[in-house]
Amino acid sequence: MKKDDCIFCKIADGEIPSATVYEDDLFRVILDIAPAAKGHALILPKNHYDNLWELGEEEAKKVIGLAAKISAAQKKALGCDGINVLQNNGIAAGQSVFHFHMHLIPRYEEDQVEIPWKTLSYEDGEAQTVCDSIKEAMKEL
Amino acid sequence: MKKDDCIFCKIADGEIPSATVYEDDLFRVILDIAPAAKGHALILPKNHYDNLWELGEEEAKKVIGLAAKISAAQKKALGCDGINVLQNNGIAAGQSVFHFHMHLIPRYEEDQVEIPWKTLSYEDGEAQTVCDSIKEAMKEL
Repeated sequence: MKKDDCIFCKIADGEIPSATVYEDDLFRVILDIAPAAKGHALILPKNHYDNLWELGEEEAKKVIGLAAKISAAQKKALGCDGINVLQNNGIAAGQSVFHFHMHLIPRYEEDQVEIPWKTLSYEDGEAQTVCDSIKEAMKEL
Repeated sequence: MKKDDCIFCKIADGEIPSATVYEDDLFRVILDIAPAAKGHALILPKNHYDNLWELGEEEAKKVIGLAAKISAAQKKALGCDGINVLQNNGIAAGQSVFHFHMHLIPRYEEDQVEIPWKTLSYEDGEAQTVCDSIKEAMKEL
């Protein structure tokens, strides 16, 4: 369940050392070496999955509970005011390592981290058309 | 399990209409009315939880599997190249409605959505100190 030449597989199984916040049978949680804020953590499954669509069922059931636990500890340890949970899928979404990982980013009032976007608006009826197309696609999955 | 004057409670239970992509006993998935990209969806639990730290156990087990399913449908329906999963906790993290919600943001090569951050670096030994403080905090939770 590991992939050759995947750096996160090597980190997750301990072959490459990391600042490990937490470890269990399924996951290793490490500090990102190029953090958006100090204490920025990454949840890595030990098995290799490229992205969200490949993530194993057991890991999918447990990853958000784990994110809640780790981020509660980040708040307590770091005194941060908030946490962003961010998980990127695909180069277009900013994914740079193709092993599923979930970012837990400590946030402070008036920090320099920006996770902004310009908002768009829908034409009349367009939202419903887009909505219907997604519903239709779900039936075909 | 609903909170008075919470707009997402009203949307989740159908009191306020929305473009609903998916609905089950625990969740309603809608299109964000101010999307970062067309088809930008929000997963809302029907019960009220302010944030990740309050999220119910059942919802925590199911939300990422649901995110995988909805985002696979978004890719198929919209032809997007990637998806960001983003879940904000606290004003400092950009949370504006205090009812847990998970963003599923369709991404395209060369789109205008930016989810960037400047990376910092740790001094020698600092990452381990931060790591240890988070581990310590986990024991006390």
